[in-house]
Amino acid sequence: MNSARLEIRAATDGDRDAIWKIFHEVVNAGDTYPLDRQTSSDGALAYWFGPNTHTYVAEQDRRLLASYVLRPNQSGGGSHVANAAFIVASSARGQGIGRAMGEHCLNEARRFGFRAMQFNFVVSTNESAVHLWKELDFEIVGTLPGAFRHPQKGYVDVYVMYRSLI
Amino acid sequence: MNSARLEIRAATDGDRDAIWKIFHEVVNAGDTYPLDRQTSSDGALAYWFGPNTHTYVAEQDRRLLASYVLRPNQSGGGSHVANAAFIVASSARGQGIGRAMGEHCLNEARRFGFRAMQFNFVVSTNESAVHLWKELDFEIVGTLPGAFRHPQKGYVDVYVMYRSLI
Repeated sequence: MNSARLEIRAATDGDRDAIWKIFHEVVNAGDTYPLDRQTSSDGALAYWFGPNTHTYVAEQDRRLLASYVLRPNQSGGGSHVANAAFIVASSARGQGIGRAMGEHCLNEARRFGFRAMQFNFVVSTNESAVHLWKELDFEIVGTLPGAFRHPQKGYVDVYVMYRSLI
Repeated sequence: MNSARLEIRAATDGDRDAIWKIFHEVVNAGDTYPLDRQTSSDGALAYWFGPNTHTYVAEQDRRLLASYVLRPNQSGGGSHVANAAFIVASSARGQGIGRAMGEHCLNEARRFGFRAMQFNFVVSTNESAVHLWKELDFEIVGTLPGAFRHPQKGYVDVYVMYRSLI
């Protein structure tokens, strides 16, 4: 990470344009999230700032470099398990921002009283993500055969990853 | 199954009230789906008749006994995998209606060109569902530890179930 301090804070409406730029870049690459490349700005931001969703951004030198969301993975009898999703600007990768957000996210999830965290759809070819989540004590609890169509690699497996927070 | 023929057909707006009755009964029991018991009729029907969702009903003697939905489990690179959800009126259980809908659903999913079907959240204590899906060639590909809070049994495991359609 650069010497300038990375600040992670709750997102505000003023962050929407910067978040959309990163979101669009990630979705347009199409190799990590099962989201439609045609997703509009309105659709994406409605999802990123959805109901029951806590939205955060990571900034350095006042530049917004990354964002994540934290929310219940299910409702009712499944609402004690959190879900989260992370996006990092391509220019800011490999600097530990994902890890810093992941650790921040786990702390926030504990603070909100979640008992576990689940990632529903970690594409197996996204090796840096799989590696990071394993380092943060997530386990692969399920493998979905060929559940993602990678734009270059074709049908690849997807992992369900899970860790307890208690 | 009773001697009267079970008809499974696409749902229409005229089915909404009858579907809501079954939906409400299932959600209110709270032991199979991770949905909020406080879900309103509008919220439930918006979900059951949502975008990209094919909705079906099962009728016998003109009585609507059950319903299911079929849709892509994810968007973009995950849209070739189907998801489905099933509700059966409590008075009509144990008669093979779930199995008939499951077989109908697999045929419809193949017809729409889906390559696989995934159930994200099969509560492990819902033994009749687990048994049925195994009989229809689904495999447990993941186990989510304690991911469902059962109203009587406390925290119980949840299965992710999956089968290929090709």
